[in-house]
Formats: sequence, structure tokens, C-alpha cells
Amino acid sequence: MATASINGERLWASLMDLARIGATPKGGVRRITLTDTDRQGRDQFVRWAREAQLDVRWDAIGNIFARRPGTDPAAAPVMIGSHLDSQPSGGKFDGAYGVMAGLEVLRTFNERGVSTRAPVEVVSWTNEEGSRFVPVMMGSGVFANVFPLQQALAARDAEGIVAGDALKKIGYSGDAPAPMDKLSVGAYFEAHIEQRPVLEDSRTTIGVVQGALGQRWFDVRFTGQDSHAGPTPMELRKDALIAASRLVLEVNRIAKGYPDNARGTVGSMQVSPNSRNVVPGEVRMTVDLRNAEDSTLSAMADDLQRSARAVAQSCRVELELREVVYFPPCKFAAELVDSVRRAAQALGLSHRDIVSGAAHDAVYVARVAPAAMIFVPCEGGISHNEIENAWPEDLTAGCNVLLQAVLARAGAPA
Amino acid sequence: MATASINGERLWASLMDLARIGATPKGGVRRITLTDTDRQGRDQFVRWAREAQLDVRWDAIGNIFARRPGTDPAAAPVMIGSHLDSQPSGGKFDGAYGVMAGLEVLRTFNERGVSTRAPVEVVSWTNEEGSRFVPVMMGSGVFANVFPLQQALAARDAEGIVAGDALKKIGYSGDAPAPMDKLSVGAYFEAHIEQRPVLEDSRTTIGVVQGALGQRWFDVRFTGQDSHAGPTPMELRKDALIAASRLVLEVNRIAKGYPDNARGTVGSMQVSPNSRNVVPGEVRMTVDLRNAEDSTLSAMADDLQRSARAVAQSCRVELELREVVYFPPCKFAAELVDSVRRAAQALGLSHRDIVSGAAHDAVYVARVAPAAMIFVPCEGGISHNEIENAWPEDLTAGCNVLLQAVLARAGAPA
Repeated sequence: MATASINGERLWASLMDLARIGATPKGGVRRITLTDTDRQGRDQFVRWAREAQLDVRWDAIGNIFARRPGTDPAAAPVMIGSHLDSQPSGGKFDGAYGVMAGLEVLRTFNERGVSTRAPVEVVSWTNEEGSRFVPVMMGSGVFANVFPLQQALAARDAEGIVAGDALKKIGYSGDAPAPMDKLSVGAYFEAHIEQRPVLEDSRTTIGVVQGALGQRWFDVRFTGQDSHAGPTPMELRKDALIAASRLVLEVNRIAKGYPDNARGTVGSMQVSPNSRNVVPGEVRMTVDLRNAEDSTLSAMADDLQRSARAVAQSCRVELELREVVYFPPCKFAAELVDSVRRAAQALGLSHRDIVSGAAHDAVYVARVAPAAMIFVPCEGGISHNEIENAWPEDLTAGCNVLLQAVLARAGAPA
Repeated sequence: MATASINGERLWASLMDLARIGATPKGGVRRITLTDTDRQGRDQFVRWAREAQLDVRWDAIGNIFARRPGTDPAAAPVMIGSHLDSQPSGGKFDGAYGVMAGLEVLRTFNERGVSTRAPVEVVSWTNEEGSRFVPVMMGSGVFANVFPLQQALAARDAEGIVAGDALKKIGYSGDAPAPMDKLSVGAYFEAHIEQRPVLEDSRTTIGVVQGALGQRWFDVRFTGQDSHAGPTPMELRKDALIAASRLVLEVNRIAKGYPDNARGTVGSMQVSPNSRNVVPGEVRMTVDLRNAEDSTLSAMADDLQRSARAVAQSCRVELELREVVYFPPCKFAAELVDSVRRAAQALGLSHRDIVSGAAHDAVYVARVAPAAMIFVPCEGGISHNEIENAWPEDLTAGCNVLLQAVLARAGAPA
């Protein structure tokens, strides 16, 4: 079976069909979690899965599982998955590729009459993006027992709508057990576009993902004193935006100064009162630090705390700094990572080891089961954007690597 | 008549009565222009003015004039004014003091049987604050022909309501000529709280205002590239917020590096997409530069343009920089400024020359008539804030200086 190949045209057609649901003018997708558009995307996936004779069910957080049985009913299933929800202005491939690639693997198995020892399941995780409800990676997080189901269901969006109600409204509050018994997952594979330009720049087709950067997220508030921009002399001001601006540059310094794929980002800032002629009395901002090594990540966090205190002092403003998220660095299961590398080699595809800068559902699943990821290039490394793009031949290649790795893990019938 | 004194208790009582209209929980005032609360404030002023036998009328932009006749019908009136509208979270004294002080001067004239050669008018200008409709200082701007009446009436608030309609609805669209024939104003005096702590810090009662800082306001936009905060290596980013933060610090450097009461403020910033884990692709921000000397203000503006270009280049982002407002520095009429100083001296009040950092209605009126301002201390220099506070004895002192200066200008009956 090492020569079985997926149908690249069918895979591409499924991605394009799916992208019509929530399509945006610039060629992207707006399929925000637990909206009616998300429901339409789920319905399409369920329809296709049933057409492929898969056994479809969903759990209490709305994760959808589509199972193809193996010959050994006692064998733990091999899972393939990702997510169907998108950013508010998202692209056609982020998430959707991993689910459609899983479906394509099982369609190929059907077509070729392949049977496996272990069952193989395609999974679509609920609310990976976290742009409407936090926490992000909600479905895989509940599945992996990272946080309780009830907490996830109680999350509210900006308009106060409760996640559990939204889930019921779209008809995807199911009764499959959640969390799954962790012993029931034999392995988890996720194919995904890279979301940065390293593969493209190095003309490499397959990224063999070693793991994911650890992340520490902070909420920062500087409180100074509003004052009128005209009358207030410079030396009497307590300008919270000057402190915030200094901290933005400190975060950039930290990210550039540490080894091991360090990253530092201030993505969000709210200036108050945000009036042209009022010295800002308060700024709230976020800081996102990432590193492949936990000890280095801690050192970066310490540096941030010291820098923020020094900035506050020199600007004569108050500081509140609170850590809100900590994902330790994730290392994927060596044997699965090896199987991905071997599959790329066997198929004659260019490949390189790579570390994911972003978290993915695989990072949570890796806490309860062996997991690995396959990256394929995306144009310019651009993602979370309507112009996100990937090439059919790369998507096909990644799906073929996936098929080989799944097949190796699921095993031949006894 | 040099010994005539205003009734400080009556002045304070009027300020406190007025402050009940639109009173806020923290002791401030919310009397946004052309709302029903503004109408109630106007109605109260008109009632008091009529009780004082003043001839009340209003013009097409809603400026209210309350005239006490002089003995010479041909003499150009001496005007005393300020505004009754407030910031959304404003204080009891900003604007209200100038109008109530004018009323108190005329009440005192009535009580003492003082007659003047020239008529004396109290004026309340429409929409000084500009927090609902722009341009700011709308009423005095139309009066002084800075912009056309029709343009001001066509302004829309954030909900699309047209200023002219709002003015009609509250019943203050009048037929007094607007703009006034500029030859008809003999002099204009405006008493105001200082809105910064210089008088308080130097334990001075009266600020003899020389003029107002010139202002140049800019809209700036940096455009980089949104990208995912995790995957995107630092060296591949085009982070618009890093550019914006550098410019905030450049504005601060500029304001601290130039003479003549230089000010520089970034009061407003919008980060896009403003998501915690997305490198910001766009930042819009404002810059407000002020200086007492026009040539220095121009040099600051040139420095800003150079700095912004250099920042954009080093951050590899696009720059748009547009000047949106230019108020040249204003110098008040020397003879009126002298009369304010002489009045303070004659009354034995501590006083100092001072430059206003903010624009006031007097700055527009100064374009068409001799004008001057009197500042009194406010607590901590805090204004545009519900906790804005001033002391009765200072308000009384400022009103007595006003009375003397008005009396000197309006002249004894021929």
C-alpha cells in the first residue's frame, strides 16, 4: 500500500466547495465559531463523511468525529483532524485543510479497499480560533481535559451570548463522551498550512513538525492621569501611552535578544480616553511571548516584568501586569514525527524539521495521546487573512504524507 | 467705581445651581452641546439674564447674547463670555465660570446703579467643547467668520444627527445676525479656570493671559502587514505598532526639545486588527503639537514629518501623515491684557503673565475684535473631568478683575 495516492483534485475541490460557505469578497472565509455559517460548514462535512460511510457523532462541546472501523474492535483509533471555524477575516486553508485531508485519506481508503487494524477517525474540533469565545482551542482543550466542559460551555462572546446556547442553537451539542477516555486515542495527526514563509522561502514541500513554541500571555495596564493636551506642561504629565510605547519596544528587544525561536508581540492596545487632545490616562495592552525552551521562555517573562516595572517608574504611572495564559513548549511524539519524516522520504518529497510558532489542536491532544503535525507551505507565509493561499500540489503532497503516516500507525489487518 | 465688588456668594450659588443641570455622580457635569441638558442650561441662563433686565437674543448658530445698554447707542459693546456646554464627563467650572462671571458683573452694575458709555453683553457660545460636533468652538468660529454658518449647521454627530436639526429641536436657532459685523464688538473678555496647575503651584490668584499656543494637529497612519504572532519570525514582520510606538516617543522628544511652551501629545491610537496574537498591520494615531511661536511650531512640525518618515523606513511600513488642524498662535490685545493686569494690581491680587495651552472662544473672537482672558486656579490643574474643582475666593477675585477691566473699557457715561 506504500504507493496508494490520494486524489489531489478531489481534495482541492472539497476545499473550494467548503470555502464557498462564509466566502468573503477578497477570496477568504468568515466562518466564526458557533454561528450559522459554522453550522453550514459542519453540515457539509457531516454530509461528506456520511457519503463516505463514516460513523459520525459529536460530543458535548461540538467536536465532530467521523469513524472508519478497523478490523480490531479493541484497537485505539488513529485520529486525523483540525478545525472548520475561521478567523473573522480568515483564509480558505487554515484548519479546513487538516479536516479535508483527513476526509480525503478515508475516501482513498474506501476507493482502494484499504482496511486497517485500528479504526481511523477524522475529527473537527470546535472553536480553535478563539476569536468569538475564549479559551482558544476550546474543543480539543475539553477533549484533553485541559479545562472543564462546563467552563467552556459558559464562555460568553462580546455580546453576552453563552457558548453552550450558541452550540445548541446550531444543533451540534452531542452525546459522544467528552472528554474522551484518553486511552482510547492511539495517535493523532494534523496537517496544516505553515502560516509563515519558511517552507516557501527554502523551497521545501513538507515541514516535519517537532513541536510548538511555549507561550506566555500577559495583560498589562498602565494608569497615569488624563489631562488636557494643551495646558498641561510636559514635565507635569503622567502619560500612560508613553509607558505603553516604551513597553512595546522592550517586548521587541526581548524577542530579538533571546535564542530558540523567541517571539514577542503586542497585538492589542486600548488607549483611554482616546481623545486627540487629552493626554492618555490609561492604556491596556497585551503581550505574547513565545519560545521553544521553557527555561528561556521563563527568562523572557522575567525580563518583561523587570522592564515593565522600570518603564512604569520612569514614566510615573502605575503598573498592573498579569499572566493570563501559559502553554508550555510542546514536543510531539518521536515515533510519530519519525513516521512523518519517513513518509516524506519514501515519497521523494523535500522536507525539513520545523517548530510550530502557533498552538494548534494537536498541542492539546499531545497531552493525552501521541501526536504529530505535517506542515505545507502557504504563500508569503500569510495566514489569518483573506488572501491566505496554498498550492494544490503542496496540499496533495501533505495529504499523501498524512496517508502514509496514518497507514503505518493504524496497521495492516491482523 | 474702582471699589465696586461683585457678590461672591451669588456667583458661587449660580455656578452650583447651574451644575445641577446634567449633574453626574462624581460631582461633575454632563451637558453635551445641543442636547436637552444643554437646553436646560441655556434656559436657566436666559431666565437669569431676563431677571436682570438684560435684552436676550440668539443667533443662527445658537450663540446667546444678553445685553445691558450703555449711554451711547453708537458705542460698540464690550462683551464678556464663554460657554455652557461641557465635556461628556466634564466639570462645574470649565466654561460655566466665564458666563456666570459675566452675568454677575451685570448684576453688580444693576445693584450699584452703574451705567457705562458702551453697552455690555454677556455671551454664551455654542459647542465650545466639540465633543459631539466638530469643529470645536463652533459658535465663536461662526461669529468670527472662521468657517461658514452653513458648514457648522451641517456637522453630524456620531449617530448622524445634523447640528442644525439638533439646534432647532432645543429651540435655540435664532435670528440675531451671525456672523456679527466685526466692527460691532468693542472688546471681548473671557474668564476661565486655568486647566493646569501653574497658578495653584505658584500660589497665584490671577493669570494675566497673553495669548494661546498655536496648534498643529495631524492624522498618522502606519500600514505594515498583519501576521500571526506565533509563526512569524521577528525579522520577517512589518509591525505597524512598533512604528507607532517609536513615533509616540519621537513626539515626546520633540515636545521636550523645543522652547516656548512646546507641547506634543499622542492622544488617540487605533490598532488593527487589535487581536492579542496577531502582529498589528495598521495603526492610526493622532499627533497634537503646540507652541507659542509660529516659527517654532513649524520647526516642530517639520521635525515630526522627518521623524515619522525615518520611523516608517526603519520599520518597513508605509506612512500617511496629514495635517488636519492649524491654529496659529494667538496674541491678545495689549491694551486689554494691560487692563487685566492693572485691575489685579489695583485689587492687590497676586498675578502673573501666562500663556494658554488650550484654545478658547477668545482665540476666535480675537481675530475680529480686541480680546483678553483672565485665568483663575483650579485644583490640581485638573479639568475635562468630573472632579474639576475651583475655590470660591479665587472665582470671586477673577470676577472682580473682570468687572474692573470691563468698566475701564466700557467707559463712564459721557
